[in-house]
Amino acid sequence: MIIVFKPQATEEDIDHVTDRLRELGLKSQISQGEERTIIGVIGDERLLDNQPLSVFPGVESVTPIMAPWKLVSREFQKQNTVIDIGNIQIGGNRIVVMAGPCAVEKLEITVGIAKEVKAAGGCILRGGAYKPRTSPYSFQGLGREGLDFLAEAKKQTGLPVVSEILDPRDTDIFLEKADIIQIGARNMQNFELLKEVGAYDKPVLLKRGMSATVKEFLLSAEYIMSRGNRNVMLCERGIRTFETHYRNTLDLSAVPALKEMSHLPVIVDPSHATGKWNLVAPLAKAAIAAGADGLLIEVHSNPECALCDGEESIKPKRFKELMIDLKKIAEAVGRDL
Amino acid sequence: MIIVFKPQATEEDIDHVTDRLRELGLKSQISQGEERTIIGVIGDERLLDNQPLSVFPGVESVTPIMAPWKLVSREFQKQNTVIDIGNIQIGGNRIVVMAGPCAVEKLEITVGIAKEVKAAGGCILRGGAYKPRTSPYSFQGLGREGLDFLAEAKKQTGLPVVSEILDPRDTDIFLEKADIIQIGARNMQNFELLKEVGAYDKPVLLKRGMSATVKEFLLSAEYIMSRGNRNVMLCERGIRTFETHYRNTLDLSAVPALKEMSHLPVIVDPSHATGKWNLVAPLAKAAIAAGADGLLIEVHSNPECALCDGEESIKPKRFKELMIDLKKIAEAVGRDL
Amino acid sequence: MIIVFKPQATEEDIDHVTDRLRELGLKSQISQGEERTIIGVIGDERLLDNQPLSVFPGVESVTPIMAPWKLVSREFQKQNTVIDIGNIQIGGNRIVVMAGPCAVEKLEITVGIAKEVKAAGGCILRGGAYKPRTSPYSFQGLGREGLDFLAEAKKQTGLPVVSEILDPRDTDIFLEKADIIQIGARNMQNFELLKEVGAYDKPVLLKRGMSATVKEFLLSAEYIMSRGNRNVMLCERGIRTFETHYRNTLDLSAVPALKEMSHLPVIVDPSHATGKWNLVAPLAKAAIAAGADGLLIEVHSNPECALCDGEESIKPKRFKELMIDLKKIAEAVGRDL
Amino acid sequence: MIIVFKPQATEEDIDHVTDRLRELGLKSQISQGEERTIIGVIGDERLLDNQPLSVFPGVESVTPIMAPWKLVSREFQKQNTVIDIGNIQIGGNRIVVMAGPCAVEKLEITVGIAKEVKAAGGCILRGGAYKPRTSPYSFQGLGREGLDFLAEAKKQTGLPVVSEILDPRDTDIFLEKADIIQIGARNMQNFELLKEVGAYDKPVLLKRGMSATVKEFLLSAEYIMSRGNRNVMLCERGIRTFETHYRNTLDLSAVPALKEMSHLPVIVDPSHATGKWNLVAPLAKAAIAAGADGLLIEVHSNPECALCDGEESIKPKRFKELMIDLKKIAEAVGRDL
Repeated sequence: MIIVFKPQATEEDIDHVTDRLRELGLKSQISQGEERTIIGVIGDERLLDNQPLSVFPGVESVTPIMAPWKLVSREFQKQNTVIDIGNIQIGGNRIVVMAGPCAVEKLEITVGIAKEVKAAGGCILRGGAYKPRTSPYSFQGLGREGLDFLAEAKKQTGLPVVSEILDPRDTDIFLEKADIIQIGARNMQNFELLKEVGAYDKPVLLKRGMSATVKEFLLSAEYIMSRGNRNVMLCERGIRTFETHYRNTLDLSAVPALKEMSHLPVIVDPSHATGKWNLVAPLAKAAIAAGADGLLIEVHSNPECALCDGEESIKPKRFKELMIDLKKIAEAVGRDL
Repeated sequence: MIIVFKPQATEEDIDHVTDRLRELGLKSQISQGEERTIIGVIGDERLLDNQPLSVFPGVESVTPIMAPWKLVSREFQKQNTVIDIGNIQIGGNRIVVMAGPCAVEKLEITVGIAKEVKAAGGCILRGGAYKPRTSPYSFQGLGREGLDFLAEAKKQTGLPVVSEILDPRDTDIFLEKADIIQIGARNMQNFELLKEVGAYDKPVLLKRGMSATVKEFLLSAEYIMSRGNRNVMLCERGIRTFETHYRNTLDLSAVPALKEMSHLPVIVDPSHATGKWNLVAPLAKAAIAAGADGLLIEVHSNPECALCDGEESIKPKRFKELMIDLKKIAEAVGRDL
Repeated sequence: MIIVFKPQATEEDIDHVTDRLRELGLKSQISQGEERTIIGVIGDERLLDNQPLSVFPGVESVTPIMAPWKLVSREFQKQNTVIDIGNIQIGGNRIVVMAGPCAVEKLEITVGIAKEVKAAGGCILRGGAYKPRTSPYSFQGLGREGLDFLAEAKKQTGLPVVSEILDPRDTDIFLEKADIIQIGARNMQNFELLKEVGAYDKPVLLKRGMSATVKEFLLSAEYIMSRGNRNVMLCERGIRTFETHYRNTLDLSAVPALKEMSHLPVIVDPSHATGKWNLVAPLAKAAIAAGADGLLIEVHSNPECALCDGEESIKPKRFKELMIDLKKIAEAVGRDL
Repeated sequence: MIIVFKPQATEEDIDHVTDRLRELGLKSQISQGEERTIIGVIGDERLLDNQPLSVFPGVESVTPIMAPWKLVSREFQKQNTVIDIGNIQIGGNRIVVMAGPCAVEKLEITVGIAKEVKAAGGCILRGGAYKPRTSPYSFQGLGREGLDFLAEAKKQTGLPVVSEILDPRDTDIFLEKADIIQIGARNMQNFELLKEVGAYDKPVLLKRGMSATVKEFLLSAEYIMSRGNRNVMLCERGIRTFETHYRNTLDLSAVPALKEMSHLPVIVDPSHATGKWNLVAPLAKAAIAAGADGLLIEVHSNPECALCDGEESIKPKRFKELMIDLKKIAEAVGRDL
């Protein structure tokens, strides 16, 4: 941590800060500049996390040097985390495509889509049973019954299931019915929910919050890992910007940035990112070219009747064609799909 | 709702849409333009909430006309909602100042600050017992014990208490110990929590999410009201923008905009909005000038030792001076404080 | 400037950096930490402005300590800059209201509005002769004729005139006809235009760019001042955010922040910030409460017929009422109007 | 255009609007809804561009239906625009890579980099002679001499040259020395400059403004085209968001969106978008996968000594490797490079 003093800071101000640092067991390295004095703090600066040094008299700014996370970092673990879901590996050389309807609606439709996803080469089934909707008057999902439908689809196709949890009181049912628990963008900083899913070793797909920086995103993953669960994957799904032509702005720079900073697998969701089915294919390709380990894609056999996000769903036929295109990109970057 | 068709849309495409509208009990008013056909939908367009009409063949865009909320709207209720907390009224002519430490730390400090807040003219005590912190390694709050300290401070000063809930499993303790339950910015779209606090009539202070539009903000309030709880107040606390000089960007335009669209009281939190104690006073004044019904201000007797957000806390002496200044602004806009 | 090295940086990497610093005449203060080495650079770090130290081997991050500006800063000049426009002072105790139509359209209308502005207590006439319009098919302003109309309005009312320049080739005519040259938000980083108006001592009203940080805003003012023109005023007019309910998001935190960092007068434009006439009054009041030195308000006698931005213009009658309200707020913060 | 009236709008209010529309030669189609009246405007709604209908009494909202541009649109011209620069075609099947230093510094370095760019397969040389720098104290470019150096590099390598114009007074020299005139992000809405370059047929590379929507971007292109210049290419270079980990947020969704809305070629600049050399390669690949027609990449033989943006420049060796990788992605999407 670097502490910069104001030009008019007194010696007393500087001593006041170094005294506090000493009390905390940290060493100070003082640089007397022409205009300003600077202190470099030596030692574990996480000790300073609850110390508002910037309000000490004479202090101009306080800049952390060390990343505030540990377990998620590439420095802590050099090699990529690879998560096993049955016989599927997430984070390895093979790119994993998770696909399915935004919301689970009817058993036959769910099973039908699952079969199409499998036939096209998708290897995980996505589907929302509990839906976080902006309006209380929108379809809120089938709840527990939706998880049952997904379980049935898994039984018939063998595809593992990823579904979103909204309430820490639902953990048991998700542990039983889902293969991957999804934490949605709106809950990225619902810390009680993060702690809850951190207490098990069930794989977690953590979506980036709508206005979360990559640093905050990694800190939310750190919440889960610090509770013991090492099976975390990160999902970029678009951030909120001034641009209104698409629902969100997909931030593909986050893919190589996260891969550099962290050892966790990185998944991209082009469907929610754009909210437009015709942008899904080009951005799915771009995501793989940028280095993503997997994709989350909305597929619906009848988008016109989808009760949620039909605008961004692609039909099974198009999904099949897309899988063929994605395979080419994967190969161009030296990976399988 | 307005449905605009592409220039190349066929008559069949148009019929397909009008058929669906008819099935839903809605009437279509068709305008045949030179370049495009437009349908105006007549009737309750909330029926279309789960209908992805934009994916119907030939449709170019779908624009809602009616606001998607009802209970929160000024159209639904003309007169301002006034919430009674003991003998205090929120939303009336008198501006209400809620103040106290960001996080509750020690009993004596909490009680001491409460006394100072009261002496200066503050009428509600704020204090965080459960703290949503970006990092898992930051101080997470005292939890239940913090609520006990607040209750003791209330006992000694008579000040009602507002405190933030994080987990729906904690509702009982909040119903017992808090006078106002706060939903923080990170949980504005934690819909399960909204539904939970909507089930009682305990007043709720709902903070605007970091990247929530005023429309989404109102929809989150609608979640609470649609469950039966009419005692909701809205709190603007800064939004996330590209500007990094302050923690968030306080959006004071939201104050008159929300007052125009809704009958609910509007509170402003200049402390979290800026993250800098020296910006709190000018923005507190500005908030009142813009029409806010109340303020939420962080006050700490010793910001240097605050375990959370010391940077934005003002000392009791400064708070006292601020209250004098705020009174002048309140009078200048025809209100009391 | 603080240079932080990666944990794996070698002694050679560190020497490489200190050598370069020495070549530039700067001294290095090295702190050997447990995990990382840090160099504090002593001396004028503006010398490093063109040195991409962050690409040197082993360097993790480079953080400037000193503000990159000089002439605009409060450190450079303690007392407020006060700009004289005839017998009006901008930046003094009296708050200055500049008002008039968005675009100059007809002579009689312009003169008529000027008279109303003066009668209500406004002391500077604003009006656009050259209009920067998003679409090439929108009304682009009357150009030189518009400046003539403003000059005539000045002749009849005595009100000095502020108008926006778009092209450095128009400087002469602006020097002749305008009392204050406005640089609009879209041109805040049109550096050739900044240099041009910096070459004279004609007062300049510099608007903040739509996505400019306060730091970039100050650097644009520094461009003008570094060419010799000390008569610069800063104008906050709303920034671009995700919120679409108003045209821009007025950032009133910038007012006290700019006043703290700089000695230049700060003006606020609530009309362009919101794009809605009914939000102008509450935000004008809030701006003064936050410490603004002046306001820029659109007034039009017939907004229905305004060729530009009629949505945000208020009528003279309302302007007159607003001036009365603003006077009360000004007094509440110890100023005149 | 759709005009929606408030529930309390009177018949008089509606007549007032329809009268104005009739005066303008537009037909109104009125829909009397249960709660609101809606008017669909039939005819060329560009006639309404200067009519602030939203301030008419009783009007709630006004929503344009037609895009406000014409010449840039895919509706106006179905087939892709292909721009010829010597024997190079931009917008055809072959992806075009433009590369070179951020700023032109010395003749030998410029020629040296040009040779490396050519050897690696780059086909256009980029280089800044006039540099728009945030601070007045940063290197501002060599100006005219820089253009001479580029011309010499072209002479020795045959590579056409793209360089940025800042001032409309420099048009002649750019017409003479550059093959493509670049309008930078900061000048995307410097309309006088747009009009100026629109008056010739010299190809223009128009960069998206830092906070410009894709719609505003297209309108700026329309400015150029409406003056007669049809040789416009669009360049996505990252937008400004809350994320600070990279300099800007590259918006790759804009690539397929622009290709859908417009017939103009779309170029991507991953160097400025990220500001970090190690993110350039993955995002360059992603841009091609998303459908870009070309790339703009900063290459410098000695980034440590670059006077501008050394942080984001890649070395010729790495550029050569990247070109090999890009070729594979180009082939995977059915294109050449």
